[in-house]
Parts: sequence; C-alpha cells; structure tokens
Amino acid sequence: MRLLLLHSLLLVGCAASPQPKVVLAIHGGAGTILRENLTAEAEAAYRAALEHSLRAGHAVLEAGGSAMDAVEAAILPMEDSPLFNAGHGAVLTHEGHCELDASVMDGASGGAGAVAGVRTVRHPIRAARAVMERSPHVLLSGAGADTFAGEQGLEQVDNAYFETERRRRQLERAIAAQARGEDLGTLKFGTVGCVALDQAGHLAAGTSTGGMTNKRWGRIGDSPIIAAGTWADDDTCAVSGTGWGEFFIRAAVAHDIHARMAYGGLTLAEACDQVILEDLTAAGGSGGVIALDHAGRVAAPFNTPGMYRGWIDAEGRVEVHIYGDE
Amino acid sequence: MRLLLLHSLLLVGCAASPQPKVVLAIHGGAGTILRENLTAEAEAAYRAALEHSLRAGHAVLEAGGSAMDAVEAAILPMEDSPLFNAGHGAVLTHEGHCELDASVMDGASGGAGAVAGVRTVRHPIRAARAVMERSPHVLLSGAGADTFAGEQGLEQVDNAYFETERRRRQLERAIAAQARGEDLGTLKFGTVGCVALDQAGHLAAGTSTGGMTNKRWGRIGDSPIIAAGTWADDDTCAVSGTGWGEFFIRAAVAHDIHARMAYGGLTLAEACDQVILEDLTAAGGSGGVIALDHAGRVAAPFNTPGMYRGWIDAEGRVEVHIYGDE
Repeated sequence: MRLLLLHSLLLVGCAASPQPKVVLAIHGGAGTILRENLTAEAEAAYRAALEHSLRAGHAVLEAGGSAMDAVEAAILPMEDSPLFNAGHGAVLTHEGHCELDASVMDGASGGAGAVAGVRTVRHPIRAARAVMERSPHVLLSGAGADTFAGEQGLEQVDNAYFETERRRRQLERAIAAQARGEDLGTLKFGTVGCVALDQAGHLAAGTSTGGMTNKRWGRIGDSPIIAAGTWADDDTCAVSGTGWGEFFIRAAVAHDIHARMAYGGLTLAEACDQVILEDLTAAGGSGGVIALDHAGRVAAPFNTPGMYRGWIDAEGRVEVHIYGDE
Repeated sequence: MRLLLLHSLLLVGCAASPQPKVVLAIHGGAGTILRENLTAEAEAAYRAALEHSLRAGHAVLEAGGSAMDAVEAAILPMEDSPLFNAGHGAVLTHEGHCELDASVMDGASGGAGAVAGVRTVRHPIRAARAVMERSPHVLLSGAGADTFAGEQGLEQVDNAYFETERRRRQLERAIAAQARGEDLGTLKFGTVGCVALDQAGHLAAGTSTGGMTNKRWGRIGDSPIIAAGTWADDDTCAVSGTGWGEFFIRAAVAHDIHARMAYGGLTLAEACDQVILEDLTAAGGSGGVIALDHAGRVAAPFNTPGMYRGWIDAEGRVEVHIYGDE
C-alpha cells in the first residue's frame, strides 16, 4: 500500500511538472470595443491575429528560448498587422506622419530599453531591445533613435510603410471633430504588448504603439516609459499597459502593480485590481494591462468595454478574448 | 492647577504652530565633487547660488504661495545660472547643441508635466509646468515641445544662449576621451531640482537638466520621466533625483521611494536609504535625491562624493552643503 501510494505520488509529480511551465500573454489594445461595432469578419480577423501572435511567442518558450525572445516574437506579427496601432497600421500624428514608441524590460537583469517618436524603423520593439542590449542608454528619441536603429542594422522603411487608409480616415475624423470642439475618446487606443515567463523562471515585458491619433508637439505616451507602460521583475511580475497614456504615466501604473506586490504583499490579481479597477478608474483614466507573476498566473484587468487579449497558460490552454463579458 | 496646566498647553500649542510650516529643498547635481577640484571662489559661488535659489523658493511659501510656484521660483535662478547643468550652462550633445529636459509633479492633484529635448525655450521648467496645466498631455518632446512652449507665450531663445565656454570644453574632452575608449563618468551630472511643502500642506517636485555631455541619438534621461526623476504625492513625499539617469529609469527611483512609504510603511529616510544607498548602489548606479515628506522632514541621500544641496526647514534654518562629509 505504501509503495502504491508512493508510486502514484511520483506519477502525479511527473504529470504536473514534466518541464518548467511557460506562460505568455498579449494585448492588442483596450477601448470602446463593442460587438455592434465589429463585423463578424473583423472579429474573426482579430481573433486569428491574436492567436497567431500568441503561438509565435509561445513556440519560443517551448523551445527553451528566453522570455525576452518570446516577447519580441509575439509582438513582431502585431507590428506587421494592419489591425493594431503599432508598426504597420499605426495611427497618424496631427501632421499626418507615424511616430512610433516601444519599450522592453527584462525581469532577470532589470535591464530596459525604449524608443520614442521613431519614424523609419520597421519594428520599434526591436529598436527598443537594441537600446537595452547594445547601448548604454534606456530611452532614445526622434531622428536620433532612428539613426541608432539603422546603425544597429535594423530594417528601415519609408514612413509611408506604416500608413493605412483606415488610419488616414481616422485622422481626418479626429481633426474634423477637434474643429467642432469634440474629443474622440476612442482614438487613444490600440497599443500592443506581451508578457512572458520562460523555462528558467524569468519574466519579460514589451509594449509597442503608434500612440494617439492626431497627436501633436512630439507627444509621448506611456508605452516607451519604463514604470508607466512596461515593467518586469523576476521577483514580482511583468506588466504591459494599454490605454490613455497620460493617466498611466501620472500613476506609474506598471511599477505600481509591482510595488504593491513587493512592499504591500498583494497577489498579482489584487494589485492589478487596485491599480486598474480602483485607482485608475477613480482618476478618470481608462485602459488595462496584461500581467504575469513569477508563478505563471495571468491577470488582464481593464475598465474599458473591451480589450484585445489572449494567453497560453502553464497547461498550454489557449484563450483569446475581445469583449468585457467574455 | 488644572487651569494653569491648560494655560501652558495652550501656550505650547501657540508657540509650536503660529502658522503652518513650510519647507523647501533643492539640489544642483550629484557627482565627483571634491574639495581639491573646487577653488575657494567656485565653492563660494555655488554656495551663494544655492542659497539664492533656496530663498527665492522659500519666499513664495512664506507669502502663502503654492508648493508648485515655489518649485518653479527656486529652479528658475538655477536654470539662469551658468554653474548648473540646466538652462544656460547646460551640457552639450555630441552634435554640439543643448537639448534640455524638465518635469514637474503636483502632489495635491497628481498632475504632472514634462518636456524632453527642447532647444529654444529659455526655462524648461516653465515648459514642463505649461504641459501640465495647459495641455492634455504629460510629456512633449523635441521641436514639437518647443512649438508648444512658444504657443504658450514662454520666452524663446536661440540655442546658443544655453552654451557656455566651459561646457564646450567639456564636450571636446568627452569626445577626445571617447576616441581613446575612455568613459568620463563625471560628465553625467549637474541636474537641478526642488521639492517644496506649502502652507496648505501640499507637496510639489520639479527637475531640470541638460542631460549627459556628449549624448547622442536623442537620448533621454530620468529628469523628464515621471516616476524616475520626479514624483510628488501629498500622502507620502516629493522627490527630485540627480545622477546617472539610466539607473534612475530602470529603478523608477522617485516612485519607488513613494511606494516603500505608501505600501511598506517606511519613513522617508528609510525609503531613501534603501533606494539610493542600498539598491541603486548595488546596481552600480550613482547619484542622489532630495526628498521631503508630508510632515516637512527632508532627506538628501547620495552615493557620490558630493551633491550640491540645501534646504530651509520648518524653523526657517538655512543649510547649504556640497561635499559628502558636511
């Protein structure tokens, strides 16, 4: 009997941890995403794109790759997709250009890199990673950041590569609304991001965006700001945010989730709920985060009607969601 | 006897708080500041400039002005002084320009504003405040931020206004050292900052800098990054940082001090010591902060040989210090 029990325990042990668990979560932006505004075709396209990115990142983790490699692998297809406000398909500035922001953070080393306002690097997430790994800096901006990315051999494109007809029409609508004194709140969103936990137990986070439609004056949102839009620390969590960037900066949203875990002893879910559902909401801000703790638990709170999001959990289950009620 | 006791208690009460206490602290940069490197004349000039700024800010508080007004009043003379790496006297970029960063945060409202890489606004701290008060944004960058500041009526100058012969020579030395493969660590510093507590019990913080000598690629340091170089929250503290900006961004230094007080229950002094003397030092970073809590207590930890710093405490005592042993 004792032998039998021991045997079954060993079996349970083997079944539960044949290899270290890996987890990956992504978002494709939060905002006024309602069923009545998405055609069945558009909804299917978003779900397919999210699942494609999830599997691209997760494959890296399953093959033993690093969390940072997985974050990059998941974000690249979203930067290439016209569906998301990052890379190709980014929103346009008031002057009609695309100015892109991105950041990454490595929870193992505490290293971080970011670019703000780049116009010619095809994959801003790669530029952010190059800043982290191949410069003494954390944040590079504007034409200088494009120059740096070019010097690092990253693919350069004409700014027109990023532009899509849909975003041109959005800009025209935003400028017309502004002339009427209206604020089109829905045009602030669409950022993409990823958090990952690798086989070595390391966390990483990354975020990429075109920012806010009709933005002016070199406006920078939270996405390239370490502590606001992105954070990763192996001891606590990895976080990527999406939403009204100014509120995320003023609340240091990503670092605040980490800090409530590190100093307040909260769980990831508790910290996320306090920061997003309580404090951000009370301040009048809108948006959400995807977050992942060192044990592989996922949280994805948002206070908008929807958030494009998905994850592959430690058991390999794939989930993709769009609306708030699913 | 009971009446007498009551009377003396009332007297004590009156003597202790004739009016709400006001406190202001500033820094003018941390770094390798050693007695053997400063002439008696230079040291006297720094002490006089620091005291001048302290009194300018403190006078606003004594007159019943806001903490934010006091922060601006204290920083303006340091931006105008050639002694500090902010405004006139800022360090030069690799290309030989001045690109200035500044930020402010209001502990009462949680509002914040910042500019990065401005070239023509004479007082970047005023531009940061204008972003907070007169735009929907937190962070504006580059030429767009200069345009915004001009539209707001802030004084514009030619970029040459900021340049001094001393900073030109520093750039030449840095470029020559770079060609030899050396790193001149002392050229990262000189940022100015201020924290203040006003009669209404509100805190505010501000930071202004030219960044790092010989900086390239549109590098942005911690000074315009809310949570890294600047933070203010009436419930905890106001913080302004100076030092090796990349380390301050990666550690979210200013917000981390706040978070250890808010969630960990630490005092200001304990939080500052952990963040600057323990964690920043262990990570290999260098610099310091000035910080002020809601009760008017000042902390000014740094791990460099010196930090230009001073404060006027709740009793009106003026202190100005430069070296680590004073």
